[in-house]
Amino acid sequence: MSRFEIHSQLLQDCHRLGQLRLCHVLLHKNAAVPWLILVPETAPTGDLLDLPDQVRNMAMDEAAIAARFLKTEFAVSKINFAAIGNIVSQLHLHVVGRRATDPCWPAPVWGNLVDADGYSSARIAILTSTLTQNHLLKTF
Amino acid sequence: MSRFEIHSQLLQDCHRLGQLRLCHVLLHKNAAVPWLILVPETAPTGDLLDLPDQVRNMAMDEAAIAARFLKTEFAVSKINFAAIGNIVSQLHLHVVGRRATDPCWPAPVWGNLVDADGYSSARIAILTSTLTQNHLLKTF
Repeated sequence: MSRFEIHSQLLQDCHRLGQLRLCHVLLHKNAAVPWLILVPETAPTGDLLDLPDQVRNMAMDEAAIAARFLKTEFAVSKINFAAIGNIVSQLHLHVVGRRATDPCWPAPVWGNLVDADGYSSARIAILTSTLTQNHLLKTF
Repeated sequence: MSRFEIHSQLLQDCHRLGQLRLCHVLLHKNAAVPWLILVPETAPTGDLLDLPDQVRNMAMDEAAIAARFLKTEFAVSKINFAAIGNIVSQLHLHVVGRRATDPCWPAPVWGNLVDADGYSSARIAILTSTLTQNHLLKTF
């Protein structure tokens, strides 16, 4: 079996934080909203709702971990969750922390993201460390 | 316990097709894309990823039923799935059938829906009947 590869567009848009049991965890570089993208190591394309139940439930468990992580680390009260994939067909799950004061609110982030600063290397290191300590993550 | 009520904005935007074990099934009135909205009979607000695992898995099972239904009845090849809730806070799940030829493609439908005709009463009756026959749905 060939090595799993994350789509180049996702790698271009995101920092890699690490890996849960099923999913790779990416952090969108745009810090306007805290935005994690989970890429399950499953068949390279397809819909979340086409996955076998057990795999889908595992992906959703990990999305819930990502959601709790965002709520804790970024003090957001609301999570937007989506599996879209109209442009990047590789299955990936959006877990987006939202606040009524963020620059995209109340629109969804897709297609409405505004320019914003990125994360500092120090911030990324702290986020990776926290995620690793709490969720037995493999890091890169 | 008071009777469960679906948010008035969802009722205004959608036809009610019926009820699965956990979720009410609504069909968005705009037929530009085939778009089901599932409203789980859970706590009235909150995030999909905050639900207890078992309830979340049940909601996702029903979303997968909705996705298969759309793929069969509307011959779409792709499903966009999301739980957003920035405007209507009642938990509801979007299951949207997409085609590369639909008028919103490749943008997500949220915020990008174009004006389009609605469904005929006859079409709604057929969809309701099919969903009922195949999925032990309670109808209204």
